[in-house]
Amino acid sequence: MITLFKKPRLAVLAAVPLLAILPGTASAAVDGETAYILNSFSFLMNGALVMWMAAGFAMLEAGLVRKKNTATICLKNIALYAISALTFYLIGYNLMYMDVGSYFGSFSPLWGPDDAEALAGTFAEGGYAASSDWFFQMVFVATAASIVSGALAERIKLWPFLAFVFLLTAIIYPIQGSWVWGGGWLDAMGFSDYAGSTLVHSVGGWAALTGAVILGPRKGKYGRDGRISPIPGANLPLATLGTFILWLGWFGFNGGSVLALGSAEAVIEMANVFANTNMAAVGGVLSAMILTQIVYKKVDLTMALNGAIAGLVSITAEPADPGIGLAIVIGAVGGAIVVFAVPFLDKLKIDDVVGAISAHLCAGIWGTLAVAISDTDATFATQLAGVVAIGAFVLVTSSALWLILKYTVGIRASDEDEATGLDKAELGLEAYPEFGPSS
Amino acid sequence: MITLFKKPRLAVLAAVPLLAILPGTASAAVDGETAYILNSFSFLMNGALVMWMAAGFAMLEAGLVRKKNTATICLKNIALYAISALTFYLIGYNLMYMDVGSYFGSFSPLWGPDDAEALAGTFAEGGYAASSDWFFQMVFVATAASIVSGALAERIKLWPFLAFVFLLTAIIYPIQGSWVWGGGWLDAMGFSDYAGSTLVHSVGGWAALTGAVILGPRKGKYGRDGRISPIPGANLPLATLGTFILWLGWFGFNGGSVLALGSAEAVIEMANVFANTNMAAVGGVLSAMILTQIVYKKVDLTMALNGAIAGLVSITAEPADPGIGLAIVIGAVGGAIVVFAVPFLDKLKIDDVVGAISAHLCAGIWGTLAVAISDTDATFATQLAGVVAIGAFVLVTSSALWLILKYTVGIRASDEDEATGLDKAELGLEAYPEFGPSS
Amino acid sequence: MITLFKKPRLAVLAAVPLLAILPGTASAAVDGETAYILNSFSFLMNGALVMWMAAGFAMLEAGLVRKKNTATICLKNIALYAISALTFYLIGYNLMYMDVGSYFGSFSPLWGPDDAEALAGTFAEGGYAASSDWFFQMVFVATAASIVSGALAERIKLWPFLAFVFLLTAIIYPIQGSWVWGGGWLDAMGFSDYAGSTLVHSVGGWAALTGAVILGPRKGKYGRDGRISPIPGANLPLATLGTFILWLGWFGFNGGSVLALGSAEAVIEMANVFANTNMAAVGGVLSAMILTQIVYKKVDLTMALNGAIAGLVSITAEPADPGIGLAIVIGAVGGAIVVFAVPFLDKLKIDDVVGAISAHLCAGIWGTLAVAISDTDATFATQLAGVVAIGAFVLVTSSALWLILKYTVGIRASDEDEATGLDKAELGLEAYPEFGPSS
Repeated sequence: MITLFKKPRLAVLAAVPLLAILPGTASAAVDGETAYILNSFSFLMNGALVMWMAAGFAMLEAGLVRKKNTATICLKNIALYAISALTFYLIGYNLMYMDVGSYFGSFSPLWGPDDAEALAGTFAEGGYAASSDWFFQMVFVATAASIVSGALAERIKLWPFLAFVFLLTAIIYPIQGSWVWGGGWLDAMGFSDYAGSTLVHSVGGWAALTGAVILGPRKGKYGRDGRISPIPGANLPLATLGTFILWLGWFGFNGGSVLALGSAEAVIEMANVFANTNMAAVGGVLSAMILTQIVYKKVDLTMALNGAIAGLVSITAEPADPGIGLAIVIGAVGGAIVVFAVPFLDKLKIDDVVGAISAHLCAGIWGTLAVAISDTDATFATQLAGVVAIGAFVLVTSSALWLILKYTVGIRASDEDEATGLDKAELGLEAYPEFGPSS
Repeated sequence: MITLFKKPRLAVLAAVPLLAILPGTASAAVDGETAYILNSFSFLMNGALVMWMAAGFAMLEAGLVRKKNTATICLKNIALYAISALTFYLIGYNLMYMDVGSYFGSFSPLWGPDDAEALAGTFAEGGYAASSDWFFQMVFVATAASIVSGALAERIKLWPFLAFVFLLTAIIYPIQGSWVWGGGWLDAMGFSDYAGSTLVHSVGGWAALTGAVILGPRKGKYGRDGRISPIPGANLPLATLGTFILWLGWFGFNGGSVLALGSAEAVIEMANVFANTNMAAVGGVLSAMILTQIVYKKVDLTMALNGAIAGLVSITAEPADPGIGLAIVIGAVGGAIVVFAVPFLDKLKIDDVVGAISAHLCAGIWGTLAVAISDTDATFATQLAGVVAIGAFVLVTSSALWLILKYTVGIRASDEDEATGLDKAELGLEAYPEFGPSS
Repeated sequence: MITLFKKPRLAVLAAVPLLAILPGTASAAVDGETAYILNSFSFLMNGALVMWMAAGFAMLEAGLVRKKNTATICLKNIALYAISALTFYLIGYNLMYMDVGSYFGSFSPLWGPDDAEALAGTFAEGGYAASSDWFFQMVFVATAASIVSGALAERIKLWPFLAFVFLLTAIIYPIQGSWVWGGGWLDAMGFSDYAGSTLVHSVGGWAALTGAVILGPRKGKYGRDGRISPIPGANLPLATLGTFILWLGWFGFNGGSVLALGSAEAVIEMANVFANTNMAAVGGVLSAMILTQIVYKKVDLTMALNGAIAGLVSITAEPADPGIGLAIVIGAVGGAIVVFAVPFLDKLKIDDVVGAISAHLCAGIWGTLAVAISDTDATFATQLAGVVAIGAFVLVTSSALWLILKYTVGIRASDEDEATGLDKAELGLEAYPEFGPSS
């Protein structure tokens, strides 16, 4: 039964008999088939919301790049979702979840649903349709890759980027995922990451960070005299829309990670997760707004948007246990981290076009450590160990990948293409052909 | 049991035993835990759709303001959602629902879920996870505030606007809400407002109206010679998107207001609500299109969009009882109201940037009165009494708030800032920096 | 019991007793009322996702037309949804589903829900709230009409287009629909179309094709020397957003077409449908990307978007039976079809603004034939018969309609209006008034 090892929370739920029948009140308990339906339906509805996050990343990034690179970032986003889904089918799901017994998961090609037991009328505790679980796990993979596309926008070549996505989602993501959600060594050690502050968001963040360093900044971003030139995004309402989409999708991301709906315990937990997820984003928006008003004397819209995302990332490692007040605080700290991380990365001349490293990596580390505040089973030391282990693994493997790509096919667009814009250079079209020349 | 007093419909549902077991057909009835799960899950899924309406308002308003004020309206929309959620947690939920015994609700600070009974395996009729109900009620608050931001766009200062939102959502909204959904005096009198034509939409509309009058119109909107200069919105596809988002979200707004899913009665009601909600919007679109064709000889896209919204607002006070034919008519009247209310407000030199007062206040009054057509328990007189009572309360309190803000911190941007645009003046950035100069 | 005849899959499900109670494990089966609730709730949630596809078509088309026709296409999309819903209420639902005994359905005016049995506590196998089914069937109608609006954009007059939509959705769509989903002669013959590759997508495609031929191409699209001038869309991020919306909505389109959720069999099938729907879109994206890279040496974003749509259309005729690998292949073939169909139509001087005929008609035919690969009950010959029968019916009736409209009210905007743009000419406004002159 791999079921019991997926994501930490399930172990807790499994400890509560789903079919507990109180003496004399038999009709008050959910029957096995109904629980099975509800568990599966939760994966489908919440999974659809997570799929919708792909649109959120696409709009966020399309709004924060310049006109001349907008069509390319749209293409990258739909392509990376497609590639992530394909690799997860071909390799990733097996590597992450099937008979994990080693540090590198366990590979067997392809995957097909096996619902024989349910079709025979036998319903395991916490059971669900195999495809519904696969669908839900699959949509998570693209999220990690989306983080990379935003950070490296406006200068990375299309196909080498997609090659990186292929290898990130086929190998790097599932191997580290197997350590925790696959029931591997970090799970055994007690490391806890409910819906993936580290396993999804920091992984994408580390891959983005190594890419940004190896790729180098956009031309003109950092002057020789240390001056930093802001390069504003072309379409802020689209970026706002993208943030709202992500916020909505995150209810599915965290809420579906309860991994069950077939008991009162499960739905109570899911309700707490929805409320906390919302309030952490609220905390992130408000702290980013207030801090930018204090520090810069103006509220910065893009910081407020990234504050929402950072709040969401921060609560993702443990959205079930905190009370609402604590969730607001955890999110607010995430929002504050973004306000300071963005200029700090600029000081290091690490050019992150959309602020993805700040929002997903920095807030993801914070959120993972913060689990120790609300979850008495987690310790700060274990959480830190997980952050470091996964960070080191992704740093090393993604650096190696980027360097191999750099010194073989090359990853950076030519200076001329960068100046022209990737849309014309790589796609031969313009995102907004009737709206005047691109800068 | 506060449960029984929330929103009028629940009383009806509670009268139908959720666990009614017919002799000899015991297996045909929903068990208590399953009902509890379904009730809660309805709040979560429908509540997520209502949260999505925040994106709808943001896009609608971003599409209907000018380029130079677009980033500011985006920021206001995400900020007002965050503030509404925070105040509802800090004050509003308690003021609105807990032990209401006075005209001013009943305040006790903060809120936390209490699911002890369900966790002990005891399931009340119509029970649900506490956080799921809180989440669903919370997302309604932001809707009221969103209406205000659209009407007052392009000239109100950011922080004073947010201060108004804080007080509107912390005090005004929950106090009047306690009168009906909290089981207060208007509920006792028989006033009926299913999902908030008055309690949400008119409240936002009254607050917008008082704000528009006290704030004054945009420079150049009304000439000295009585000429009215149209100020077209900058991005009509975004406004269209916003309307579609609102339409989708409204299924959750009205559908979730059944407040239950754990019985055949509940899901039949929810299905009727979905169908009627859709058809009222359909009626609103078509009547606005036909009327603008007749009156102006051209179909007006923004009127069609506002017609949809007005149709939705109109059916919100009673989306369950009418047949589909009546729902279309109720929505069509709402659409017609918008077509005539928008130029009427312009004649009064009340400048409502997006038509929010027409769509939410005027159609909201119509919808509340129209309850008497389909619901035999409601009377025209009682419905009017509720409209007047809540209208008077919000008119007085919001006028007082606007005046206090006006004569202390000031609410109106300087003429220079208004001419420059709030984006540059207040945020120091542009929404579309590469798309040519702002007009 | 019309229930059993709606859409092919239900017959299969009905064959599996929903309330099968194994001896000694009575508590393991779903009770009748719970099944009723779940079946209905599936229609509502999945139906809301299908309604959302209306926004997807609106954004896709708004992104792929020129600036000067953007507001008109937005209006057409919201109007066609409204008209489709109205006609389905007035005529279509009855014509399609009620007591079908002839080649032309069976007309009886209006429609109202009848839930008497459920309210009396009697739950039929596979039962659901009448309005929930109506809502789900209703949202499908607009999809067919949306396909037409995209293909004929930028040159068709508003009201004649809407008149066509009225007659398409009132008469043509429901009559051919009655042949299959209404339990008519094509269903009896064994023709299988799970969620409408032919019944919805090809129908829209045939109506678009006849319209495009009779209406003629946009001025300047095809030169006298055989040169084809590309007319790029004005706003590609909007087109990308539209594609993501369609992708999300398609989970509801195909997933809700299981027509049940009240048994393990049903949810297993729904999970397979979600997974296959996603993977067919993935296949479509990737094959379109790779093929455009090979053929044109550049990846074409709009082809990738249409590849996703074509993949989705291709799997729609049978999303439940294939394994994931086969679903990818079916979608990939769909994506390839688009890459070759778009230039082929251009060679024939058939001007399809958004590629709708290629994505919906060509891929729809492919998907319908491909049912024979995975469904052993279907044969290639029967599938072809259905494609031809429905194709011939829609070709003839829609050609007749277009010709009648052409020679009475006229369907084509004047050359002057086409040059000016339909927004100014027909609506008297601009979609982007502050973004410079329209080309």
